[in-house]
Amino acid sequence: MSIYKIIRETAYEANMELPRLGLVLFTFGNVSAADRDEGVFAIKPSGVPYKDLSPDKMVIVDFDGNTVEGTLRPSSDTKTHAVLYKHWEGINGIVHTHSTYATSWAQAQMDIPIFGTTHADHLTVDVPCAPPMSDEMIKGNYEYETGFQIINHFTELGYSHHEVEMILVGNHAPFTWGKTAEKAVYNSAVLESIAHMALLTRQINMHSPKLKDALIKKHFERKHGPDSYYGQ
Amino acid sequence: MSIYKIIRETAYEANMELPRLGLVLFTFGNVSAADRDEGVFAIKPSGVPYKDLSPDKMVIVDFDGNTVEGTLRPSSDTKTHAVLYKHWEGINGIVHTHSTYATSWAQAQMDIPIFGTTHADHLTVDVPCAPPMSDEMIKGNYEYETGFQIINHFTELGYSHHEVEMILVGNHAPFTWGKTAEKAVYNSAVLESIAHMALLTRQINMHSPKLKDALIKKHFERKHGPDSYYGQ
Amino acid sequence: MSIYKIIRETAYEANMELPRLGLVLFTFGNVSAADRDEGVFAIKPSGVPYKDLSPDKMVIVDFDGNTVEGTLRPSSDTKTHAVLYKHWEGINGIVHTHSTYATSWAQAQMDIPIFGTTHADHLTVDVPCAPPMSDEMIKGNYEYETGFQIINHFTELGYSHHEVEMILVGNHAPFTWGKTAEKAVYNSAVLESIAHMALLTRQINMHSPKLKDALIKKHFERKHGPDSYYGQ
Amino acid sequence: MSIYKIIRETAYEANMELPRLGLVLFTFGNVSAADRDEGVFAIKPSGVPYKDLSPDKMVIVDFDGNTVEGTLRPSSDTKTHAVLYKHWEGINGIVHTHSTYATSWAQAQMDIPIFGTTHADHLTVDVPCAPPMSDEMIKGNYEYETGFQIINHFTELGYSHHEVEMILVGNHAPFTWGKTAEKAVYNSAVLESIAHMALLTRQINMHSPKLKDALIKKHFERKHGPDSYYGQ
Repeated sequence: MSIYKIIRETAYEANMELPRLGLVLFTFGNVSAADRDEGVFAIKPSGVPYKDLSPDKMVIVDFDGNTVEGTLRPSSDTKTHAVLYKHWEGINGIVHTHSTYATSWAQAQMDIPIFGTTHADHLTVDVPCAPPMSDEMIKGNYEYETGFQIINHFTELGYSHHEVEMILVGNHAPFTWGKTAEKAVYNSAVLESIAHMALLTRQINMHSPKLKDALIKKHFERKHGPDSYYGQ
Repeated sequence: MSIYKIIRETAYEANMELPRLGLVLFTFGNVSAADRDEGVFAIKPSGVPYKDLSPDKMVIVDFDGNTVEGTLRPSSDTKTHAVLYKHWEGINGIVHTHSTYATSWAQAQMDIPIFGTTHADHLTVDVPCAPPMSDEMIKGNYEYETGFQIINHFTELGYSHHEVEMILVGNHAPFTWGKTAEKAVYNSAVLESIAHMALLTRQINMHSPKLKDALIKKHFERKHGPDSYYGQ
Repeated sequence: MSIYKIIRETAYEANMELPRLGLVLFTFGNVSAADRDEGVFAIKPSGVPYKDLSPDKMVIVDFDGNTVEGTLRPSSDTKTHAVLYKHWEGINGIVHTHSTYATSWAQAQMDIPIFGTTHADHLTVDVPCAPPMSDEMIKGNYEYETGFQIINHFTELGYSHHEVEMILVGNHAPFTWGKTAEKAVYNSAVLESIAHMALLTRQINMHSPKLKDALIKKHFERKHGPDSYYGQ
Repeated sequence: MSIYKIIRETAYEANMELPRLGLVLFTFGNVSAADRDEGVFAIKPSGVPYKDLSPDKMVIVDFDGNTVEGTLRPSSDTKTHAVLYKHWEGINGIVHTHSTYATSWAQAQMDIPIFGTTHADHLTVDVPCAPPMSDEMIKGNYEYETGFQIINHFTELGYSHHEVEMILVGNHAPFTWGKTAEKAVYNSAVLESIAHMALLTRQINMHSPKLKDALIKKHFERKHGPDSYYGQ
């Protein structure tokens, strides 16, 4: 039995959640699940329809992007996942989708403003949108550089990847992550909902004010602070 | 057998309607059902996925927000429900959701204009949006104060909670209520539909006039007046 | 066996199509099916959920709006159906819904412009929107007058109810009709699609030109003219 | 056994995908599958509901639009398919739908701008919108001329039908094609997604810049170039 059985199954289950949650068309998305003790992650094979997936089709890749186990080619976004796992400790799941509303904000190259408590329940700042990469980065090791574009944008903003678990890559689409692959998928669905409601909020009132600090703090802390009282 | 069996089952059934009606993502919503003779209500436990709910997992809480029966932590919005039950007689069900369109109007901090008969079949005024709370209220007993923010806004507007069974809380999301939990859930779905169509109505014609008084009166009375002739 | 068995079953089947086509929330819609030989129509009972309907619950009503057979109260819109059957020969099915997009155009009090061939496949003119009724009409026999408002608007426009099988009633919602109840339901779904796409068309290009005459004529005639070649 | 068994089954399966993908209302769409050795294609019969289709109901037509086998009348758009097969070598599947978002761009008579990588993964240019045809073309052999309108627009733009597998016909709706009927259906769903996100992108930021050349080139080539690394 493969020592990667658990991450294969975790990655499989998490990938299958994407179509159930309405976050992907065809194969336009991928989830990975990491095993930090082994220094690897399991990721969806490239271009394989969700209905044809199974745990044993997940590809095992190390944090430099080299395939460790598996006969299929891994997702074309694999190197982006590898870079994030390598440089950001504590995350064990990453999701990339082209979900409709989040991708549209990415295409518009705009941060998603924090307009309400649904947003503040999950992060205290606008959802950041990293600018499109330089031509040099694109022409080079593109997916590898995408990972650095994400990390660099967080560094510039002074954000922690533990506190903000989602980003838009300008002109492209969202990435989310979390302590588990399940949490990363959850974040992708939350992001899509936030993106949808932020668009509608501005359509209703172009001058909608952002959430005030007291509400941001309150909602985030009731879910995430030391005195959190949401959940069991 | 628990004396709370009926409200446990009522609250359970009403909560399960929310995902069926497309009003919640994950656990972003809750329904309670009250037993006024016992001075308690049954409410969804906090953060438990809908698929894992059962009647016995509902938490029994009194009108001051104290848990009376149940091992799980009740919804984080429990105190808002308690305040409304305590101060507004005659309501036996309350619903809170983050449904997409109603929440977007709440985020835009705008009342939903009464544009058509679908709206007038249910209430004769714009759906009110309470302003965001003061920082003091937010930092204090937040969910408790949310209940008072709702009640105070109705008092200021001179509205009866029997005639208007829904409100938006600015920057946050909608609350609805009714004589039964089932009616409160019904009101949440109606509100979402009204919110969606009001947005579209203004997109089609930014200068859409509100419904005229004669139509408001007629439609409301055919469903609710002493001479109502809708339903059986 | 009731002599109304066929229209009871026809009306039942046609009503059940409305939720399947996504055209109704709860009970916000109704379909009737007429038997012109008997001078009656079968219509949905008022306020009864779709899941509880059955052919025997349909109410048989004559063209003056009087119940002929059935113990339940007929749809509150029954008199509007009666007026249309009485004054417009050749129609044997009528549908009323509060479908999202068509109702939003009705609330905006605007005709739906003919922007494309999907529209022209079904009618050669903008979908007309009748103005809201006078206060006198509303305060009087409201649903009865709604029927006349529809007929009068067609008369003013010089439209034939055989050629244009749909209308919006301003501030209210759409009505459609046809030679059969099934065709009337079909028209309701077509109208909703046309209404949705017309809104999007103007959002993409506020100055979108209407369809030119040659295309209108061609598309309508390939489905409806003496030389039609659509269908079997 | 018919020598057309394979294209009958291919066309049937591909047609049945349209409602599953949410691309058609009623019968407003059709797919054909060609057998170039035999010089024919199988196409959906006109106006037959999807639930009543079967492989043996597909109509076999030659590249001049003449029925070769089958008792049902072929799709009213058959001649458009015939013209494309006759003049564009290498395509073996064609799809026509009135899908909501793509059709709305066609009604607005606008190309769909290339805003993101979802678009660039499939084509390197804006999705072209052919202008409405001249009155002479419309009054003449309309569906036949529609085929030439598509071909002529590609010629004018200098586009290859191998590189760009989709077009909008102004005021009408989209056509897509591909090496197989399955690929043509895939392209229709991709087009609908692109069309939806392009509308939202402009609603979020009316001045959204188009994708820059380096990103267009990178994304297209990773899926389609000689060094492509997407898929298995």
